[in-house]
Amino acid sequence: MPLIVQKYGGSSVATIDKIKSIAQKVCKLHATGVDVVLVVSAMGKTTDGLIELAYSIAARPAAREMDMLCATGELVSASLMAVALQDIGCPAIAFSGVQAGMNTTAEHMRARIDKIDVRRLNAEIKEGKVVVVAGFQGIDQKGDITTLGRGGSDTSAVAIAIALKADECRIFTDVDGIYTADPHIVEEAVCLKEINYPEMLEMATYGAKVMHARAVELGGIYNMPILVANSHKDVPGTLIHKGANMESRNKATGITSTINIAKVTVVGVPDRPGVSAKLFGVLAAKGISVDTIVQNSGLDGTTDLSFTVARNEAEEALEIIRDVAKELGAKDIYVDKSLGEVSLIGSGMQNTPGYASTMFNALAERNININLITTSEIRITCIIDETAVKEAVKVLHKAFELENK
Amino acid sequence: MPLIVQKYGGSSVATIDKIKSIAQKVCKLHATGVDVVLVVSAMGKTTDGLIELAYSIAARPAAREMDMLCATGELVSASLMAVALQDIGCPAIAFSGVQAGMNTTAEHMRARIDKIDVRRLNAEIKEGKVVVVAGFQGIDQKGDITTLGRGGSDTSAVAIAIALKADECRIFTDVDGIYTADPHIVEEAVCLKEINYPEMLEMATYGAKVMHARAVELGGIYNMPILVANSHKDVPGTLIHKGANMESRNKATGITSTINIAKVTVVGVPDRPGVSAKLFGVLAAKGISVDTIVQNSGLDGTTDLSFTVARNEAEEALEIIRDVAKELGAKDIYVDKSLGEVSLIGSGMQNTPGYASTMFNALAERNININLITTSEIRITCIIDETAVKEAVKVLHKAFELENK
Repeated sequence: MPLIVQKYGGSSVATIDKIKSIAQKVCKLHATGVDVVLVVSAMGKTTDGLIELAYSIAARPAAREMDMLCATGELVSASLMAVALQDIGCPAIAFSGVQAGMNTTAEHMRARIDKIDVRRLNAEIKEGKVVVVAGFQGIDQKGDITTLGRGGSDTSAVAIAIALKADECRIFTDVDGIYTADPHIVEEAVCLKEINYPEMLEMATYGAKVMHARAVELGGIYNMPILVANSHKDVPGTLIHKGANMESRNKATGITSTINIAKVTVVGVPDRPGVSAKLFGVLAAKGISVDTIVQNSGLDGTTDLSFTVARNEAEEALEIIRDVAKELGAKDIYVDKSLGEVSLIGSGMQNTPGYASTMFNALAERNININLITTSEIRITCIIDETAVKEAVKVLHKAFELENK
Repeated sequence: MPLIVQKYGGSSVATIDKIKSIAQKVCKLHATGVDVVLVVSAMGKTTDGLIELAYSIAARPAAREMDMLCATGELVSASLMAVALQDIGCPAIAFSGVQAGMNTTAEHMRARIDKIDVRRLNAEIKEGKVVVVAGFQGIDQKGDITTLGRGGSDTSAVAIAIALKADECRIFTDVDGIYTADPHIVEEAVCLKEINYPEMLEMATYGAKVMHARAVELGGIYNMPILVANSHKDVPGTLIHKGANMESRNKATGITSTINIAKVTVVGVPDRPGVSAKLFGVLAAKGISVDTIVQNSGLDGTTDLSFTVARNEAEEALEIIRDVAKELGAKDIYVDKSLGEVSLIGSGMQNTPGYASTMFNALAERNININLITTSEIRITCIIDETAVKEAVKVLHKAFELENK
């Protein structure tokens, strides 16, 4: 029997009526002889509400307790979904992350999946039940509840699909699929029929909010086909798989953007080996992920070292490196929190001339100043002023004729 | 070091401000060198809200999923309480029922505690932490979440106190303690300084809502002193312990009442051995607890068998016995759902004449008709029309001069 893992996000299960309507759809699919595992997020804005509660008590609630608190949202939606399925005659059972065998590392609020023990999952599937799994959560070796970080339910779903050797993982959301650019910014944006893992990974990492980057990465490593589709509309969606773009390499796929960027500059550190290792070592140890790093060596034997981080981690990053920077002899540290970035994504760009220059020209024509540039094989990212981001996306979408995708 | 287990009910942790104020109190106590374990209920009406959600989906949600759903309420309050304690510098850690080692039977929504594995609890206490335990919940052998039934957090607290060999268990609530009668009904009702386990058990079973009967029973078996006190007022409260009433036996202690009674009558069953065993056997198998049983043998070799159950279980009880009753040759079954009961509780009443007659006279004077009477060594209960219950409580409180307690 084919096995499909389906994931429904928070907006898809925001109300009792939406839960009931998804139960109907799933029940029909199950009746056709397909085994189904459902992974659900918390209802609507539940997680935000829980976080707000904790922050109304303490400025820095402990990560361990935040995980215990936030994991409840998915327990509620999973049990309600199972109740809805049972009510219409579809055999179903709800599982917490723990019950689904989701073993993770102990890094609270950003745990990583170690291993999924699928024995209970398989036993219930074999009995003909739809298993509804609370997404986003797991358990560490001590028996403490962990969460995979915001958006982690996508990762739960893909990981479970892989562990169960499912035929496909379907991520249902409130948009029709993956677009060439955010349709709220670019009216002409087109929904893609398919995309390959590396492109999707870049899209997710550089601003497309539809999917969690870690989930895409995992899907790519294990070659699990992922369909991103609309939970309440009958549209084909976008298939993320290995085979995409076989015939259409060397083409731009999409434009993404974000305004959640801060640049930290450490001024006048001695230009000697080991400085970067020390600075970025302490940041990594605290789990701050650093994006772009730029170093400009001066003539006086010192260097200015800049790096970008997510804006909401800027203050923490500053605090973490302050002592180390002083120790290293840095003259000053400052942060610019008014930045954003725009990225062009497409397979094979690096080996094809013209993409970068087209991009830089298009931005220059609109007087958009480029602060930093970073590239990968399939991506060019320009860090620009946050106020220029929307215009940059529009300009680039037009310059690369993405409306004709 | 002394060890105190404290339990805070839903109304005591209903708001962030209340949680903070309890954290302050607990922190002060902990600072005096007392080890503290906190057991918390869900905030305010959370559990009702969750149950309502499930019933808005299905008329009969599965008990297993109801447990998973309802257990989330206590996880939220426990993690928030730990966050509040940590925020004011009191080392604290939140535990789910599972993490507290609460192993229960698999009877969902009415699970019983098998064993508490206190190793993790003890380890954290030894490290100087206040452990905040989510009440009401546990885990069965399959790894499924169970709950102990409404009001189960009291039982969680007393059981944990016993397992940890605590010095005292304190149940904090929104009233000052145990009263001679419900102060909402009898203005002159007096808060008792102390009460013994059997009396308190009868009080709790027969209508006093302050404490869960199972918790009192457990406290009595293991001789754990339980203080019932007001969470937000500095009043002495009522101590439930073995030593109470040594000098004041043969006195009425209190009047309780409830209107949650239904009487089921099975008409014309053959009067032969094994009939009751069969009827009550099937009810017990489904976990319906039967209270009073009365049998009136007729002259025609048949008997009418009446029993009372909680009103909200009446329909289920009917459904369960319908087939058996038919099989036994019963002529009819009917239910009276308009009953209530009033109970007089006091040690040693059975060996002292006068209590019963005083009670029946007092009711007769007000023209209150007695439908059924049941007694224990320390209790006399009259089942009467629900509309007469409040008056009966007032009359009896006066007749036994409880305002002078």
